[in-house]
Amino acid sequence: MLKGYTVPRSPLGQAAIDPPPPWHYSSDVLAVEFWADPKVTASMLPQGLSADPKTNGHAVAMFLDWQFTAAHDEYLDPARYQYREAFVLIDAAWNQQPVTFCPFIFVDNDAALARGWIQGFPKRIGSIFQTRTFAAPSPAAAPVVAGTRFAASASTHGQRLMNAQVSLREPVADPFKIFNRPTALLRYFPRLVKGQQDEPAVNELTLSLTDNLKLVDMWAGEGKLEFPVVAGEEIHNLGPVKVGAGYRYSMAYSVTDLKILESFA
Amino acid sequence: MLKGYTVPRSPLGQAAIDPPPPWHYSSDVLAVEFWADPKVTASMLPQGLSADPKTNGHAVAMFLDWQFTAAHDEYLDPARYQYREAFVLIDAAWNQQPVTFCPFIFVDNDAALARGWIQGFPKRIGSIFQTRTFAAPSPAAAPVVAGTRFAASASTHGQRLMNAQVSLREPVADPFKIFNRPTALLRYFPRLVKGQQDEPAVNELTLSLTDNLKLVDMWAGEGKLEFPVVAGEEIHNLGPVKVGAGYRYSMAYSVTDLKILESFA
Amino acid sequence: MLKGYTVPRSPLGQAAIDPPPPWHYSSDVLAVEFWADPKVTASMLPQGLSADPKTNGHAVAMFLDWQFTAAHDEYLDPARYQYREAFVLIDAAWNQQPVTFCPFIFVDNDAALARGWIQGFPKRIGSIFQTRTFAAPSPAAAPVVAGTRFAASASTHGQRLMNAQVSLREPVADPFKIFNRPTALLRYFPRLVKGQQDEPAVNELTLSLTDNLKLVDMWAGEGKLEFPVVAGEEIHNLGPVKVGAGYRYSMAYSVTDLKILESFA
Amino acid sequence: MLKGYTVPRSPLGQAAIDPPPPWHYSSDVLAVEFWADPKVTASMLPQGLSADPKTNGHAVAMFLDWQFTAAHDEYLDPARYQYREAFVLIDAAWNQQPVTFCPFIFVDNDAALARGWIQGFPKRIGSIFQTRTFAAPSPAAAPVVAGTRFAASASTHGQRLMNAQVSLREPVADPFKIFNRPTALLRYFPRLVKGQQDEPAVNELTLSLTDNLKLVDMWAGEGKLEFPVVAGEEIHNLGPVKVGAGYRYSMAYSVTDLKILESFA
Repeated sequence: MLKGYTVPRSPLGQAAIDPPPPWHYSSDVLAVEFWADPKVTASMLPQGLSADPKTNGHAVAMFLDWQFTAAHDEYLDPARYQYREAFVLIDAAWNQQPVTFCPFIFVDNDAALARGWIQGFPKRIGSIFQTRTFAAPSPAAAPVVAGTRFAASASTHGQRLMNAQVSLREPVADPFKIFNRPTALLRYFPRLVKGQQDEPAVNELTLSLTDNLKLVDMWAGEGKLEFPVVAGEEIHNLGPVKVGAGYRYSMAYSVTDLKILESFA
Repeated sequence: MLKGYTVPRSPLGQAAIDPPPPWHYSSDVLAVEFWADPKVTASMLPQGLSADPKTNGHAVAMFLDWQFTAAHDEYLDPARYQYREAFVLIDAAWNQQPVTFCPFIFVDNDAALARGWIQGFPKRIGSIFQTRTFAAPSPAAAPVVAGTRFAASASTHGQRLMNAQVSLREPVADPFKIFNRPTALLRYFPRLVKGQQDEPAVNELTLSLTDNLKLVDMWAGEGKLEFPVVAGEEIHNLGPVKVGAGYRYSMAYSVTDLKILESFA
Repeated sequence: MLKGYTVPRSPLGQAAIDPPPPWHYSSDVLAVEFWADPKVTASMLPQGLSADPKTNGHAVAMFLDWQFTAAHDEYLDPARYQYREAFVLIDAAWNQQPVTFCPFIFVDNDAALARGWIQGFPKRIGSIFQTRTFAAPSPAAAPVVAGTRFAASASTHGQRLMNAQVSLREPVADPFKIFNRPTALLRYFPRLVKGQQDEPAVNELTLSLTDNLKLVDMWAGEGKLEFPVVAGEEIHNLGPVKVGAGYRYSMAYSVTDLKILESFA
Repeated sequence: MLKGYTVPRSPLGQAAIDPPPPWHYSSDVLAVEFWADPKVTASMLPQGLSADPKTNGHAVAMFLDWQFTAAHDEYLDPARYQYREAFVLIDAAWNQQPVTFCPFIFVDNDAALARGWIQGFPKRIGSIFQTRTFAAPSPAAAPVVAGTRFAASASTHGQRLMNAQVSLREPVADPFKIFNRPTALLRYFPRLVKGQQDEPAVNELTLSLTDNLKLVDMWAGEGKLEFPVVAGEEIHNLGPVKVGAGYRYSMAYSVTDLKILESFA
């Protein structure tokens, strides 16, 4: 009798790429708000979502250093479970509800990739880095104070996809005024049987559920962002037409559930 | 209208982690035959498969350097698509048919991981290496001649899972006498909705279909194999009770289809 | 006229693996004190150092997440300069002066490897991870409070070399009472000319100079440590005969100079 | 008594990043001839070399999949010693002797980086890939026949530095007519002592000595090459003004010695 929430399923269930929920996350985040060509963002939405009539084109690029744990102290195995991530969220609407949608996301860890696919985050493997803040004073410390700059980048297969920078100006009293939309996702798993390769086994519009969401220590400032053109990729089509504020903060939540908005399979 | 056989789906379909079939593969293979505790191999079989009454416990460890292409010259983007892989196949039976089953497999490339999941290979990311053969004569060349040794290893998250070595003795006239069983796989994709986390969206016993299968330049010799014990993993439970022959050869096939033996979802 | 403190030297001096000093560092550290077989630690000392008559066998294993910058905002290019490191320091004596000596060290970044060689840290490339602390409350956050556990590991070429864990108990009032010895190093660069391969071009016993050394937010607690046996490596010969306290803290310093204790070239 | 040709030196000499010579190498090579701005190539030469009066500006970009061994079967530990490399060689003259010089080189392995520094190759860590040829027939096999294309790329820290492609046309009867210049290198190791940071401990113009050099199975064809512009790097200043032939071949040699042309330290 095989056990395991994910493959590989095994007699004890320990070999699985991921343990079952609850999945707990805590992170440091660098985020830059931007505007893309509204035709581009509209073209990146899956079935079931429409362009937000008021904010179409508005988006945010995010870089996160994550710590993960499930129920068995996975945070004590950082070689297997700690990871870095970068993604884009674009404004959209589901029926009348304002949401964001994630068209592109990169992580440096396979356990994170698998959890992402299960939720609907279309993760690929990349290398992601952000300037960190350290407690010991030094020109290398990047303290969270006005004027400090933080930078981040994301690459995949040796090609740079995103460069960002945030120059801190002031604390944000209510982070939830800044980031207040739920995230819609495309949960999608294809079939390989001949004749059914256009009929995915799973094709669901989902809504990410984030228990105990915390946004703390948020600072805002000036943002910079670029998406270098890379052959064979499409994220650069978001190439900002305007860049807005940048943010640095810490975020935590837990995942124990998922909302299926619509199924198209 | 989003395009793409896999996530991330995008306006042009170029950002997908994988192109659609046909998927063409060519590789160099190092393989070592072994016997595990029959209770262990039997315990690793999914629903629908049973222990092979005659050969239960018999298995093979394989290491492959792969080149991949689909229809658009993907072999000319080796940074994105070339990869190395290690896995285990254990003998089993589906109804009365002799098959092998793949309980564990590791690759160093995300496109390969995704194609694997779609077929039913339970891939995780690892680092895999095998001694190669080179044409220019040198003590470093490892020519394919009697007496040459080839070694291979697989690791994940900084832990060594497999070590193998093959000492070549003689060519094999008919490789298909050695490797003649089709491979059964568990195609599995979980649900995250609360209350349904034990009810996978996809839970299929599949049979890998390999068009134009070629096994060429096979040599046989003495095999060595070990599975170091690693906390949090289970592959070492296959720790050989006996090691058999080793093989080195080249293999190619194409994937355009998949056979679903049974669906349990 | 080529420029650059290190290779590759180039017309503008930008391609060098490292910028010139000053080198500024800030880090989070996980450290575990231990005792090795005194014969082993004594055998690992270079010419010019002797076993500390009082503490021979005493050592510390350290894991560090580092941020680096030189004079040109290198901390804003974390993909090139941010890194993780693990090493061992063993007690020793130079003349009558108590020092530590670093026999083994692993980093995941080539710029850090090169700076290390220039100082005398015998760095090799590895993969190193430690549990981090995050500000946003979560079971994944690992707050710096009594009872929280932090773990770390180091691997090279797919083999695990070190596993450590620290369970925090209480803050340390004066970190410099714990870590108060300077670090001696072997700065060593071989010759390749035939007949001179045993006569290194550089063979210096050096003393690391750390300007503006800060040790802050130190906590002590229970330590755990193991060095798995790895063929072809020697660090496991330090395999603890006793494990002492564990520490978690933040550290910063700058490097602008090096003291040469003795030259043997 | 510490042993080891390189750091880390240790009681048994097994922990060293590299074993002592002889160093044996065998490889598959993809090479593209090109011409850069002659002012640029001249500006990249170290003290002791001058621009070749006849061919200044002529250069070659090379991508190599390497197997390495020393005297103790290192080719059987491919996780530690097998590697991929990319570099550029530019024409130059030492006194009246035509040579090439290597201004930039990237490898994916630390043992290779260290050997390179010892010879004078200014290696940094990168990720390098080339299309391989496989024996088993398939659209993925890339056989060495007229019309087959091979591609290669090199990246460092997530930024693409080089893209190349070769379309095979015909075998080359005498490879040594194509590649017939010895390679001069800058062996360079800085000092860190304050006041001596501009006075390297080692600053030697060297000549690479390649025992038993073999160039076999060489094919020539059409070459393509580009050096994308990357902030903080200089290799793109070689950005071809003209691209010549491309080559694919296998190469082997051994290293047991180095010639010091001049010492400037």
